[in-house]
Amino acid sequence: MSSSEWYIPEDRFFVPEPTQRSLAKELYSTVQSLPIVSPHGHVDPRLFTGEADSFGTPADLLIIPDHYVFRMLYSQGVSLEALGIPRQDGGVVEKDHRKIWQIFADHFYLFRGTPTGIWLTYELAKIFKVKTKLTSQTAQAIYDELEEKMKLPDYQPRRLFDLMNIEVLCTTDSATDTLEAHKIIKNSGWKGDIRPTFRPDAVVNIDTENWLGNIHLLEKVSGISIGSYRTFITALESRRVFFKSMGAVATDHAVLTPFTAEMSEKDAEEIFQRALRGNVSQDDCVKFSAHMLIEMARMSLEDGLVMQIHPGAYRNHNEQVFQKFGRDKGADIPIATEYTRNLLPLLKKYGNEPKLSIVLFTLDETNYARELAPLAGHYPVLKLGAPWWFHDSLNGMQRYFDQVMETAGIYNTVGFTDDTRAFPSIPARHDVWRRASCNWVAGLIARGMVDLDDGREIVADLAYHLAKIAYHLP
Amino acid sequence: MSSSEWYIPEDRFFVPEPTQRSLAKELYSTVQSLPIVSPHGHVDPRLFTGEADSFGTPADLLIIPDHYVFRMLYSQGVSLEALGIPRQDGGVVEKDHRKIWQIFADHFYLFRGTPTGIWLTYELAKIFKVKTKLTSQTAQAIYDELEEKMKLPDYQPRRLFDLMNIEVLCTTDSATDTLEAHKIIKNSGWKGDIRPTFRPDAVVNIDTENWLGNIHLLEKVSGISIGSYRTFITALESRRVFFKSMGAVATDHAVLTPFTAEMSEKDAEEIFQRALRGNVSQDDCVKFSAHMLIEMARMSLEDGLVMQIHPGAYRNHNEQVFQKFGRDKGADIPIATEYTRNLLPLLKKYGNEPKLSIVLFTLDETNYARELAPLAGHYPVLKLGAPWWFHDSLNGMQRYFDQVMETAGIYNTVGFTDDTRAFPSIPARHDVWRRASCNWVAGLIARGMVDLDDGREIVADLAYHLAKIAYHLP
Amino acid sequence: MSSSEWYIPEDRFFVPEPTQRSLAKELYSTVQSLPIVSPHGHVDPRLFTGEADSFGTPADLLIIPDHYVFRMLYSQGVSLEALGIPRQDGGVVEKDHRKIWQIFADHFYLFRGTPTGIWLTYELAKIFKVKTKLTSQTAQAIYDELEEKMKLPDYQPRRLFDLMNIEVLCTTDSATDTLEAHKIIKNSGWKGDIRPTFRPDAVVNIDTENWLGNIHLLEKVSGISIGSYRTFITALESRRVFFKSMGAVATDHAVLTPFTAEMSEKDAEEIFQRALRGNVSQDDCVKFSAHMLIEMARMSLEDGLVMQIHPGAYRNHNEQVFQKFGRDKGADIPIATEYTRNLLPLLKKYGNEPKLSIVLFTLDETNYARELAPLAGHYPVLKLGAPWWFHDSLNGMQRYFDQVMETAGIYNTVGFTDDTRAFPSIPARHDVWRRASCNWVAGLIARGMVDLDDGREIVADLAYHLAKIAYHLP
Repeated sequence: MSSSEWYIPEDRFFVPEPTQRSLAKELYSTVQSLPIVSPHGHVDPRLFTGEADSFGTPADLLIIPDHYVFRMLYSQGVSLEALGIPRQDGGVVEKDHRKIWQIFADHFYLFRGTPTGIWLTYELAKIFKVKTKLTSQTAQAIYDELEEKMKLPDYQPRRLFDLMNIEVLCTTDSATDTLEAHKIIKNSGWKGDIRPTFRPDAVVNIDTENWLGNIHLLEKVSGISIGSYRTFITALESRRVFFKSMGAVATDHAVLTPFTAEMSEKDAEEIFQRALRGNVSQDDCVKFSAHMLIEMARMSLEDGLVMQIHPGAYRNHNEQVFQKFGRDKGADIPIATEYTRNLLPLLKKYGNEPKLSIVLFTLDETNYARELAPLAGHYPVLKLGAPWWFHDSLNGMQRYFDQVMETAGIYNTVGFTDDTRAFPSIPARHDVWRRASCNWVAGLIARGMVDLDDGREIVADLAYHLAKIAYHLP
Repeated sequence: MSSSEWYIPEDRFFVPEPTQRSLAKELYSTVQSLPIVSPHGHVDPRLFTGEADSFGTPADLLIIPDHYVFRMLYSQGVSLEALGIPRQDGGVVEKDHRKIWQIFADHFYLFRGTPTGIWLTYELAKIFKVKTKLTSQTAQAIYDELEEKMKLPDYQPRRLFDLMNIEVLCTTDSATDTLEAHKIIKNSGWKGDIRPTFRPDAVVNIDTENWLGNIHLLEKVSGISIGSYRTFITALESRRVFFKSMGAVATDHAVLTPFTAEMSEKDAEEIFQRALRGNVSQDDCVKFSAHMLIEMARMSLEDGLVMQIHPGAYRNHNEQVFQKFGRDKGADIPIATEYTRNLLPLLKKYGNEPKLSIVLFTLDETNYARELAPLAGHYPVLKLGAPWWFHDSLNGMQRYFDQVMETAGIYNTVGFTDDTRAFPSIPARHDVWRRASCNWVAGLIARGMVDLDDGREIVADLAYHLAKIAYHLP
Repeated sequence: MSSSEWYIPEDRFFVPEPTQRSLAKELYSTVQSLPIVSPHGHVDPRLFTGEADSFGTPADLLIIPDHYVFRMLYSQGVSLEALGIPRQDGGVVEKDHRKIWQIFADHFYLFRGTPTGIWLTYELAKIFKVKTKLTSQTAQAIYDELEEKMKLPDYQPRRLFDLMNIEVLCTTDSATDTLEAHKIIKNSGWKGDIRPTFRPDAVVNIDTENWLGNIHLLEKVSGISIGSYRTFITALESRRVFFKSMGAVATDHAVLTPFTAEMSEKDAEEIFQRALRGNVSQDDCVKFSAHMLIEMARMSLEDGLVMQIHPGAYRNHNEQVFQKFGRDKGADIPIATEYTRNLLPLLKKYGNEPKLSIVLFTLDETNYARELAPLAGHYPVLKLGAPWWFHDSLNGMQRYFDQVMETAGIYNTVGFTDDTRAFPSIPARHDVWRRASCNWVAGLIARGMVDLDDGREIVADLAYHLAKIAYHLP
């Protein structure tokens, strides 16, 4: 290779050792072209409402909406204003996207050895077919090239969706969302299978900023007047019916901890009334969230929506960044998480229900072998989600395979979840997963632990089937 | 290989890279045939009381008593009743062992890549010399074959014990056990070396179900009337004398946390009296257990029994399964464990005693490099037990070697402990350990960290000598 | 090799797989001879005050001052007295250094596979050019050889400093230290660049033994009468000015936890007054240390000294050893550490300051991927220190690379810190780091993640440039 070109070899991510590598290649050839199933993520459905929708500029596509990218530059002293990140107060930020792109290129070396670097390289080299490596010198020429290509029909969102071979894409939507974009897509005649996911955090966590406003919105969209805990539950149930009618297969719950604890309806009502009066304690909030997780499991048992729990992120850790730029700006930091005792009340009530399915994620890898794999290897309702967020990386996947599978078993996991906001990174992320899993299974075969026939089935399960089964996708 | 046969290659579990693999093979050839020393486990000694004892049906041998096996099927929706697991209430469970075996075979794919899959494969392919892989199709023919072979003299427990080349096997026995089976074995003239281990959990943890009944039993077997803390201690000491006389070399303590704290005799007496009256608080229980760990260390210092501590399992996590089927049904889940502060009081009192030996185990691997290796690398009384339970696996062993040895040193570890209830899995488990340790040491040699002469000594120490030394076995 | 010679192959520490190994060798050849930058450690500057200073006997050089060495022998039952470790009460300890050396040689097998074994081997084989492996048999002959060589001019400390190609060496010095040795070195005309580091633990942590004595010393060396919190702060600031004038580039803070919390000046004053009266609570101590970390960050922002935080060691865990032999005797044991919430107050105040630099270390590797990498990958002020203490090892480095780099990025780390008291181990330790990092980067290249040009830059950054940049070294 010449160092001025991208280094993206055909056999990337496989170990160099020839026996395992050759097995990995053989396995990969069997899953490389399987359709992409993306059961959880944050792509904006509005991208797909029209034939001619576009991604904007290269900076709009790859930098400004992607906190994986700009957090790294920020950590090295680049201001978010210089990268065009909109300020909450409408203050001045860089508007010249060529300048933003140049800063990005000047700092592209920061992504060496990172998953973000791998995804960006894939997007530029494979999706946009840019030949030269991004550097300070090549920045503007590549900008020109991207701008040009992004005007072509093949780079419109719907067309890319098809070219990427996406079979189904699930978005994440607030409980109060009216799913207008999803309706437009459904009615458009386009065949892309895009489904909403029911995420009620902003109404079930009573310490959410502007919670009362969210409740008013919930009243409006559900048509149910919410004066009590009971009517609140009814409104949530009615929204779940609506989401299911729009194709939803799952719910999603982002909580600080997976603490669960049931309250009597009377106690729940009292806290709910205090919340309506804007007069809740920290203790009220913790108890109410813990109770609502059990209540949500009850609803999932009844309506069949798969329940996803994403705990352990301390959100908006950097108050100054939060005040200026709002949430999701790369300042969410994981905390140590406990599942064995926290989930006990929920599992005591519903852990043995054959019809309930709960997918657990973690940002604290110490739980893989210690708590999550033993839990999933016993309870019928539990499955383990893919390595998440900071752990959606080659090493993160390898640790997941090594620490989860021996105890949980492969069939208590759910395949891959890309969880991305960056639409063009989807094939890049699934490709990393497929290569990493083929490499892992090749290692099992090379060390005499599974035979090649079993190995072929496993990689297809990990790439495609497990996700479809776990999320009840057609 | 044909995919209808077992895939159990001669060089299994070694890395494919030829330099390291060839060293691993060479090292393995030097330890492969060493006798098995099994200083801690849960095999039922009654298997060995007679010449003609048998294992029952294939399901009796491999499924019904093994929670490693049935938990995995349960996690995927198979009921424990369908697997013939006896109900506490005597309710109906499957009695047709051929049906149970068929369900097991139908779900055998769940064990792909798991240690249970490895052990079962070894037992079927190597011990019972079954040629074909277990599948839905081959299930009944393999059942026939096993049934036939299990009638042969070579498959009777004592004969298998000898064929497996077991030098010594330690069982785990309640403090109130009269060790009848051990007596029969001793008096039978058979040369098999089977020793009891003193496990007083059910009498020293005052929150044990039916604790008072256990105390009455302790009175009966010790011949000591237990009306006070002092007489309780005397009774325990007398049982230790008895266990030693029956060949015991160690004690075993399963605790939720390794919290230790000494009480005055007066305080201990007060709690003990409350316990006799059935009137203890949660705080009493925690304090008494913490005190008894120190008291047990005192006794070990005096009588030389090696003290094993197995903390960190939240027992019977699934209340519904516990109520129906009792303990040890695959529903024990690990919790995060702390040693540095918890062990401080015990170590302050006895940590520098040259004659005391304490073996620490963990279900929380985060302690390997952070707390356990530094503790064992300093305190004369401490040694680290083998990777335990969920971590008794190829990856678990690799993590143990990688995270423990650099800081603790190899000679503060105790070799391998199979800790199994499944007698025929013993050689399978020791074989995994020997292969994993040879593979690890081969890596050390290949990377220039130890020379081949040292490597040969290390693998023999890990396979055989360390266990004998640590447990004071003759 | 013959087993009677050291096994220290040229390509040690690289994986055996030929592709990666060959890349690792190529990368290593580009960094092997770079000068050593040692921005943090505990070498005694008095070694370098004169031309003809000497290291004493072989036992003085390699055993008696090195708690990494004697803790391991102690853990196996060798008394510290037998190893010549001085007792606090002046009690009898072994004075015959040949006898001490023989015990060390008899137990040298304990260091198989440990970093201490690697360093000692390097020192004996590469620095002292001893050919034969240390064993019980060769002990006395090697002692003779070392004694002979240590008289030669090339083995005097200053000469070794130059031969080892050390560009800069930072020591660690109490806030009350008058830096006499540093003055003598500076004025001696010798060109060795040895710098102090400001470590104020003994005066900012009010629970330090003899804290009031330390405050009196601080008064004396600063010339400032300390009757109040305000004058205390002024005295600290004046010492920092002095340390800077002596070449200091950094401060160092050893804390049990990284808990930070600001107090009002009034509250700080009240606690400080109680401390002066010798009347503080545990709560006072925790709060004052938490406050002082923020205050130290404020000073670092003002004077530009890089702030190092080393949390998580439970010091002097073995009280009996502490009473007899004092601190730093191998009895410091890590505890679980939390950063996300503990650092929040400090980061809220100073986390976005472009001129402040804080380097975080940990003894709890669970923080690498969970808290430290996400924090460093976002906050401009944070960088991650090298794998520390028990984790300064081949596996520790591999885990650091694998768990930190994907999320933090290489450029939020600071290269290597040897942190050693054992001067002759410095090149051994840096060599391990350089080989480990070349091996890691070779793996990135072999798996198609970075190209060779980038790889070459990364290994030079890790070996040399990152430390210079992070510590503002000229």
